[in-house]
Amino acid sequence: MQYSDFDKTKAFKTLSSLVQTGERFDYAAALAPGRIQGAIAPMAGGLSYSYAAKPVDETILAALQALADEQELIAKYKALLDGEPMNTGENRKVLHHLLRGRLGGDVIFEGKNLGEFYKQELARFSQFADDVHAGKITGSTGKSFTHAVQIGIGGSDLGPRALYLALEQWAATTGKKRLDAKFISNVDPDDASTTLAPVPLEKTVFVLVSKSGTTQETLANELFVKEKLKAAGLDPGKHIVAVTSETSPLAHNPAYLDSFYMDDFIGGRYSSTSGVGGVILSLAFGRDVFTQILEGAHEADALALETGVLKNASLLDALIGVWERNFLGFPYTAVLPYSQALSRFPAHLQQLDMESNGKSVNRNGEPVRYATGPVVFGEPGTNGQHSFYQSLHQGADIVPLQFIGFVESQRKDDVVVGGSDSQTKLKANLAAQIVAFAKGKRDANPNKEFAGRRPSSLIFGKQLTPRALGALLAHFENKVMFQGFVWNINSFDQEGVQLGKALTKKVLSGNSGDAALDAYSRLLEIERERRDMN
Amino acid sequence: MQYSDFDKTKAFKTLSSLVQTGERFDYAAALAPGRIQGAIAPMAGGLSYSYAAKPVDETILAALQALADEQELIAKYKALLDGEPMNTGENRKVLHHLLRGRLGGDVIFEGKNLGEFYKQELARFSQFADDVHAGKITGSTGKSFTHAVQIGIGGSDLGPRALYLALEQWAATTGKKRLDAKFISNVDPDDASTTLAPVPLEKTVFVLVSKSGTTQETLANELFVKEKLKAAGLDPGKHIVAVTSETSPLAHNPAYLDSFYMDDFIGGRYSSTSGVGGVILSLAFGRDVFTQILEGAHEADALALETGVLKNASLLDALIGVWERNFLGFPYTAVLPYSQALSRFPAHLQQLDMESNGKSVNRNGEPVRYATGPVVFGEPGTNGQHSFYQSLHQGADIVPLQFIGFVESQRKDDVVVGGSDSQTKLKANLAAQIVAFAKGKRDANPNKEFAGRRPSSLIFGKQLTPRALGALLAHFENKVMFQGFVWNINSFDQEGVQLGKALTKKVLSGNSGDAALDAYSRLLEIERERRDMN
Repeated sequence: MQYSDFDKTKAFKTLSSLVQTGERFDYAAALAPGRIQGAIAPMAGGLSYSYAAKPVDETILAALQALADEQELIAKYKALLDGEPMNTGENRKVLHHLLRGRLGGDVIFEGKNLGEFYKQELARFSQFADDVHAGKITGSTGKSFTHAVQIGIGGSDLGPRALYLALEQWAATTGKKRLDAKFISNVDPDDASTTLAPVPLEKTVFVLVSKSGTTQETLANELFVKEKLKAAGLDPGKHIVAVTSETSPLAHNPAYLDSFYMDDFIGGRYSSTSGVGGVILSLAFGRDVFTQILEGAHEADALALETGVLKNASLLDALIGVWERNFLGFPYTAVLPYSQALSRFPAHLQQLDMESNGKSVNRNGEPVRYATGPVVFGEPGTNGQHSFYQSLHQGADIVPLQFIGFVESQRKDDVVVGGSDSQTKLKANLAAQIVAFAKGKRDANPNKEFAGRRPSSLIFGKQLTPRALGALLAHFENKVMFQGFVWNINSFDQEGVQLGKALTKKVLSGNSGDAALDAYSRLLEIERERRDMN
Repeated sequence: MQYSDFDKTKAFKTLSSLVQTGERFDYAAALAPGRIQGAIAPMAGGLSYSYAAKPVDETILAALQALADEQELIAKYKALLDGEPMNTGENRKVLHHLLRGRLGGDVIFEGKNLGEFYKQELARFSQFADDVHAGKITGSTGKSFTHAVQIGIGGSDLGPRALYLALEQWAATTGKKRLDAKFISNVDPDDASTTLAPVPLEKTVFVLVSKSGTTQETLANELFVKEKLKAAGLDPGKHIVAVTSETSPLAHNPAYLDSFYMDDFIGGRYSSTSGVGGVILSLAFGRDVFTQILEGAHEADALALETGVLKNASLLDALIGVWERNFLGFPYTAVLPYSQALSRFPAHLQQLDMESNGKSVNRNGEPVRYATGPVVFGEPGTNGQHSFYQSLHQGADIVPLQFIGFVESQRKDDVVVGGSDSQTKLKANLAAQIVAFAKGKRDANPNKEFAGRRPSSLIFGKQLTPRALGALLAHFENKVMFQGFVWNINSFDQEGVQLGKALTKKVLSGNSGDAALDAYSRLLEIERERRDMN
């Protein structure tokens, strides 16, 4: 297998030669009914990926296929599945797919079959959730748990939280809701204090999540929680479970009710389908719901093995994103779910994409000469329509759009106004926006003119169920992975977070050795407080 | 007064000639303690604006001052305050400053003194809140109100919601919390259904907010709420107050408990300090707290009259933003509050900035040839550090950063771990990030190298109080206004939202006359549902 920088490929030259074709793409013609019906790639979980409103014609799609073939994207994915150390800088395997099921060979590491290890941990925390639900495991006063609070940050927070919110109402409506879940992440003490204020500590199980067991914010919040538990006369050891790696200080620690493990081959932002997401989601919704999320994700992972770009939605989405980023020059992507349940899904994708592909060196650590991951942002429609869509329609720059929508609501609690219910209005808005962005509108008054030519894709399905959600999650994980392969970067490390951590420690040491740090500390009066505490 | 396109000014030429100076700006040298202590502009509400880590030296600041003078930014602001119709396309005045206090002449429109009108409405809804708190106004069963739910979208949602969340914990801690507030915005029926599920309808007052009284999403949600009230045996007329314009169908309507008014001169995204934010915030926290927000905003508005850019933080912030956008070529801004209370403040600023300045025509409706408002996004630190900061530190593009931080937390509920409390850790992280972004770090391994040269500014103060929050809000409103004046655009209309609305109506009519709309409707099965309903 060959690892080449993107700009050294033949496909890069071909795509460069097609830039004018892309810039002249006829969006109005592209939105013919035949293309809208035909330009759909199947996804897992009953979802579909529509790319009719993307600036790709047959020639460009053929060039993208050639790129996929030349950069051996599927072969690299297979190598990853088989346990090749694709996290090159850290020389680590990348095994989040294996959490959902096996698609490659057995992955053995230091004599351990990791697929079996992940299965065993899944079984253990599923049983734990069962026991909590059955009242076999209780808090220190013997009362059953009614609330679960996750303590974690970054990948231990955004993904699990987004998934919880995505299914909370579905679960409430279908009778699957078991425990109320909340999340503490920020080191800002107001976060923990606010979250804990309304929670019945006696009936709350805490899920402490840190792979390394050394995350500053998480350890501070752990102690915050422990002090509250003690102040309430409760035994922290009966209220906290840990999710961590077996080599962490949190592992095999009798101070916790139980501990569940992952390893260094599950990156934080890819860990929602491990115990990092699995413990809290199983507690909240039961093991069956979490299993359905895994099944949807596994189905998506299997589909992503398809070599034909038109049959592989995550590959196609990845390649169109590369086309827009590197050749059409759009530096951002907006994620716009027409589903209130997905309110925090854009924040998860923001981490997934920007932390994975916001890199400037290739997998060997050499600087690359082309743009990599875009800025990702988004809010649910229709809210965004009354906010930043003005700029998306008529602003100076073009922002590619990722719409997501469902035929049915989750709660099926609706009202008819003016001949249509709200769910129908929601979808009408979504259809209208796609067409408005693509086709625009001529007007004699330039202020009322819409240039159009704003590309978008649409992921759609019947309803946002656990299975659909798992597929949606894995779709984006695999999209980001394929883009990393195209760019020849390592999507699985995050060296860019280290410097801030190191300088924070210097500040807190009281002897930073850096005049700029000291000066900013004085603005924020960190010096004074340190003295006050002594 | 002269209105000139930005690229026709002398200052534009001067700044163009300084691009290389900007690109070569020595961030490490700029972060000398003397500059960090000195490069601070005072703000209202006890806040300060630090620009030491922005790529501006004396020469560039002088050119920005010359730009402010040449484009007559302060004179234009004064004209706006005096009631000039600065919303040119719609020929409307722009009077949100007058909600907070008078800084110009009396503004008379059709014989009415608008300053007095705004004061009178403020007095009316303050009294209403007092009466609710005193139990003089109750729901239809005579029980006192304990909950308030706002129904509104866009400017009637994001600003009020961000302000409520910003002060909820401060109020809870200082004994000012009166009613619990919630917000319904999205036309997605899951939003209203989910929000209402835990609310005690009998003890809930709804604040229905739509200036026009015709907002599709808000009217759908109004009926949703009314049906729930009726189903609970309650009289909607005793549970809903309207906030609208006097010409709207909602005005002077005996079907509501009361109605409070603003007018066409208060733009949605600028309406948080009108009844749009004032009713719900007065209900939640009492009239005194809302008055303090207004005072902080008014103080900021007064400060924004200062002609010297180094004494006028919103002007300086605006000009540095223009420098970064038009000359250094950065198309985005990230808002990074180190305060969990500001969790939704970036979403409000996203609307404020992108809906105001995401324009491509000047105030006369002629196309402009330069970039205007940037893409704005953000999440609270330290959460962002474990998410998208990777890309901000080491990604392909440079994203200018707006940090916000406070010396003290709101709840003062904290824990000491490793010799420091969490608030101290929060601030240490903030100081560390500013320095890390600016100075970077050399490393023999390019993957561990930080190029630095990432510009940031810092707004800081002692604590996030109502007064500080009002000042913060007005700072950004005035920043956006000044940028609009520089770019010679109309920051106060939003023609870019109209096309989507028009096409939505077409879809819902069942006879769209557009094959693309019909095809997308079929994907989302809007056709089928329409038939089902008939």
